[in-house]
Amino acid sequence: MAGVATFDKHPSDILKIGKGFSLKDLDPGSTPGYAGDKADGETLLAELDDKLSRLQEKLFAESRFGGTKRILLVLQAMDTAGKGGIVTHVMGAMNPDGVQLKSFKAPTPEEKSYDFLWRIEKEVPAAGMVGVFDRSHYEDVLIHRVHRWAKPEELERRYRAINEFEARQTAAGTKIVKVMLHISRDEQKERLLARLDDPAKLWKYSSNDIKERAFWADYMDAYQKAFDKTSSELAPWHVVPANRKWYARIAVQQLLLQALEGLKLEWPVSDLDVEMERELVERS
Amino acid sequence: MAGVATFDKHPSDILKIGKGFSLKDLDPGSTPGYAGDKADGETLLAELDDKLSRLQEKLFAESRFGGTKRILLVLQAMDTAGKGGIVTHVMGAMNPDGVQLKSFKAPTPEEKSYDFLWRIEKEVPAAGMVGVFDRSHYEDVLIHRVHRWAKPEELERRYRAINEFEARQTAAGTKIVKVMLHISRDEQKERLLARLDDPAKLWKYSSNDIKERAFWADYMDAYQKAFDKTSSELAPWHVVPANRKWYARIAVQQLLLQALEGLKLEWPVSDLDVEMERELVERS
Repeated sequence: MAGVATFDKHPSDILKIGKGFSLKDLDPGSTPGYAGDKADGETLLAELDDKLSRLQEKLFAESRFGGTKRILLVLQAMDTAGKGGIVTHVMGAMNPDGVQLKSFKAPTPEEKSYDFLWRIEKEVPAAGMVGVFDRSHYEDVLIHRVHRWAKPEELERRYRAINEFEARQTAAGTKIVKVMLHISRDEQKERLLARLDDPAKLWKYSSNDIKERAFWADYMDAYQKAFDKTSSELAPWHVVPANRKWYARIAVQQLLLQALEGLKLEWPVSDLDVEMERELVERS
Repeated sequence: MAGVATFDKHPSDILKIGKGFSLKDLDPGSTPGYAGDKADGETLLAELDDKLSRLQEKLFAESRFGGTKRILLVLQAMDTAGKGGIVTHVMGAMNPDGVQLKSFKAPTPEEKSYDFLWRIEKEVPAAGMVGVFDRSHYEDVLIHRVHRWAKPEELERRYRAINEFEARQTAAGTKIVKVMLHISRDEQKERLLARLDDPAKLWKYSSNDIKERAFWADYMDAYQKAFDKTSSELAPWHVVPANRKWYARIAVQQLLLQALEGLKLEWPVSDLDVEMERELVERS
């Protein structure tokens, strides 16, 4: 790693929401804690792939011997912010067998007929897995707040329910890492135009995206409210400036690395008589 | 790609089982169709990652516009043959969002209470996905044959049921690619010993592996029988020599590339009025 620019402060310390955090004051074009440029960032991302993959394998291995630790990365963002790129370029380094990815779309009629956490509960990561929610239960306090699909008292109930739900997951061995990828309204415009200009990207474009743009300020308020209500020491929110895709990727990679390192993982100690097994294999 | 050794014949033509194929005659240490060495193979694998990933994205994109095409890669092998490595190093290049991986373990009591295809049916890939079965419905005619857990007439029924099942998947738009990774008994011994010697690999070792080694010849017979009974033009078996891990990976990558290319994928043609949408985005 000699020569590759690294973070000067740990991203989790900088990007984690503290008391009095205000989304308005964070520049989506900034690169907190990182002085390198795009080329540096891409090098750093590639160089840490192996470390991330190794930690994930240890997590998986522990679970085969009764370990209950697991990770849940919750990704929320405005459209085009780069959730998909995080999945491809950060999670992609890990063994697919150890990654449990769920993209939550608009709920089906069946899903709507239950409490909002019903469909979420079914997708929580199994022991040993790195779970990723591409959108999540937070939609129920974001788009629902913006379009007033839920009344204020119902929203309050949901914030409480989310905190209880997340505390329960934490108690079961899940380290929850919540990330909002933060882009500017102008940056989104550029990205939407880019989709319209490229036949390989046009299929990702939805005219619905324009409609939601009209509610940008309301969304930012809804995010701020969600942070205020649901960021806790056990399940903190991180806001990652995402106008620069390369920065968002190294920042989320760092958050995952720190979460995994915090689990103090070890290769399982087998109770096998290794010498005897070796002899048996030799003779077999 | 200038300078990188490529295949001189297409792997699907060489590795696909033809009339009179005999597993006994295939050298697990060979590298059919490829004259390059390990370093060449690793370079080739890395160079084709983008192509594979691009094709997978096209497949996914088509499904968003009503396409029903999909891939199902069925991986079968003796223990330690490298199925996990295929998943990590070949499938790992694709967007995790477009890969639907299922590792089939020994069936649970509930699964056993149903027909053997019950649990398989639930895991067939959705439209637009590249599905991977790490072990599969073939266990029910492999280990079940070896240990005589099923009577001969029941095994015959299962071969027929498998062919009907696979024909039905094919009719639904699924291109099935069946692969047996073929290692030698001696190579397995080396790999088991390597697991015992490395604390980072010991957790993968199971003393059960030795027991199954004793039935090696019976397994090879069961594979041969499965090939004879279930290799068809629509859902052919391929046997990939796998003593050299690097070869097995480039061979399976090639099989996937050809399967995807065979689907004649195109970026979806949107019925959007792109000019109008561009204007709307500009004004938004």
